[in-house]
Amino acid sequence: MASEFDIIERYFSRPALGDDVVLGVGDDAAVLNLPAGRQLVVAVDTLVAGRHFPETAAAFDIGWKALAVNLSDLAAMGATPTWATLALTLPTVEDDWLRDFAEGFYQLAETHRVSLVGGDTTRGPLSVTVQVQGHLPAGAALRRDAAAPEQALLVSGSLGDAACALRQLQHGAAADPELLQRLNRPQPRVALGQALRGIAAAAIDISDGLLADLGHVLGASGCGATLWPDRLPTSAALQQLPYEQRLACQYHGGDDYELCFTVPAERYAELQALRQRESLALTEIGVIESEPGVRCRYGDGRSESPPPWGFDHFREEDPRD
Amino acid sequence: MASEFDIIERYFSRPALGDDVVLGVGDDAAVLNLPAGRQLVVAVDTLVAGRHFPETAAAFDIGWKALAVNLSDLAAMGATPTWATLALTLPTVEDDWLRDFAEGFYQLAETHRVSLVGGDTTRGPLSVTVQVQGHLPAGAALRRDAAAPEQALLVSGSLGDAACALRQLQHGAAADPELLQRLNRPQPRVALGQALRGIAAAAIDISDGLLADLGHVLGASGCGATLWPDRLPTSAALQQLPYEQRLACQYHGGDDYELCFTVPAERYAELQALRQRESLALTEIGVIESEPGVRCRYGDGRSESPPPWGFDHFREEDPRD
Repeated sequence: MASEFDIIERYFSRPALGDDVVLGVGDDAAVLNLPAGRQLVVAVDTLVAGRHFPETAAAFDIGWKALAVNLSDLAAMGATPTWATLALTLPTVEDDWLRDFAEGFYQLAETHRVSLVGGDTTRGPLSVTVQVQGHLPAGAALRRDAAAPEQALLVSGSLGDAACALRQLQHGAAADPELLQRLNRPQPRVALGQALRGIAAAAIDISDGLLADLGHVLGASGCGATLWPDRLPTSAALQQLPYEQRLACQYHGGDDYELCFTVPAERYAELQALRQRESLALTEIGVIESEPGVRCRYGDGRSESPPPWGFDHFREEDPRD
Repeated sequence: MASEFDIIERYFSRPALGDDVVLGVGDDAAVLNLPAGRQLVVAVDTLVAGRHFPETAAAFDIGWKALAVNLSDLAAMGATPTWATLALTLPTVEDDWLRDFAEGFYQLAETHRVSLVGGDTTRGPLSVTVQVQGHLPAGAALRRDAAAPEQALLVSGSLGDAACALRQLQHGAAADPELLQRLNRPQPRVALGQALRGIAAAAIDISDGLLADLGHVLGASGCGATLWPDRLPTSAALQQLPYEQRLACQYHGGDDYELCFTVPAERYAELQALRQRESLALTEIGVIESEPGVRCRYGDGRSESPPPWGFDHFREEDPRD
């Protein structure tokens, strides 16, 4: 069986992508040059087999997604990602699996010019913890606590696709390939996050479901919102679902990795200019209000509260249990 | 059952220890101010239950050790630690366990003025991944590849204590309390690492055993060494072991978390001054040579090769399997 050092050398020692890596994989720690005048931004997330991906998931997809969910956190801050570390716990060492995992990880890393600068491999139940580091100009972070009444509420891309694919898989159905791609290889909105600096007030990435993540923004900012459910951006595949099922995926489904953000009126012209430039849809789905809580206002005039729960790893009603 | 957010709020949201934390636990990512002119240093390590600590280990000790092994990596670079993130995977949420774990983690963190700035809690088999960040003056890192012939080879503290405690436990014996302390609550040599900047050439922390870790330094530096086994620093408790057993613990035992470093002749006077100031023993245990490999020269004049293997998480002969 390969040793820890063999694993790192064989699969995880591609050269750094920039001269900001003074010392990468292979010493006690990495040594890195942060550009002058920038603040450091750090996010960490763990994916556990059987919990965040099926035991049978393709190694390529696991490698991709473990990095993607962290890049998504950096996108939600408006940061430029630069470096990642990887802590990989494996039950056994299988060359094919490791090659595919590394390929998935590096393919996404290279797209975003992120260098893998360190890591740890241990034996145990399959689990992947990635930490991503990046930076942004001092004071420019898109924080959760910066929403305020009358700001417009927007999301990028479309919502509910990954949750729908997961439900199809859980019910033994053949998952729609496009939806499955959203579940297995999410695209972190890194460029959008950076473009939103100076335009958006608050931002979060939708990992636990729109209502749960919007709730974090509202809680941190001390305000509420009215949502327009009929305007939630919906993929062609999801439009074929019955309305209630579609809404359930969009409200509560995790794994969207779209950005949810607020824009004050005085930045709205800049937002419109950004929309012209971006190929990605940016959809206004509601408005921030001073009254706490979330109200859903439907096209037919009805207004009601949404069901209160979202995806949370330690709740008994967790839809993935 | 507590939710992910409850766990973080209840146990892991003590205030940051310095004004270098712009945004800590509670957003998508942490935002941090690196002091001007310093390089960022990053290390990550995972502890898996049943592998790096017994399933029955005290939660306090697990929290302590998960941070300690990472601080030890930063010490080996000569870095000043500042921030940590914690990715904690738990089979169940138990309040007593979490309180004790957090207490062990924070007790060591506060000693070294390290702020916990982010994390992730997930459900799964017990496993702890900590990443520590710190910094040092540009170009000052103590690298593994800087050893050169004629440099003195030294270690801090005493060697083999933790390995001896582990063997006592594995054989069902009552472990010596002092040795057990070395195993369960290692003291990372953070102040020493910083003091060695400008004095030591190469450095590494001894986590996998003296021979394995010295081997990494020699491999990276392209040289060899002669070791003086009779001079290995040995605690009073370990001196009571038969000579061969003691040496086995000192050569191959992991979990020492002492620093092993080399000092060139022109820095030897500064090393002596440092020895006067430090309460921690610094023992010369050999010399770096151009001839590859490690030779052991004993007090009786014998010279022989040491057994070639050390502790490695994916080797079949791993003593902890």
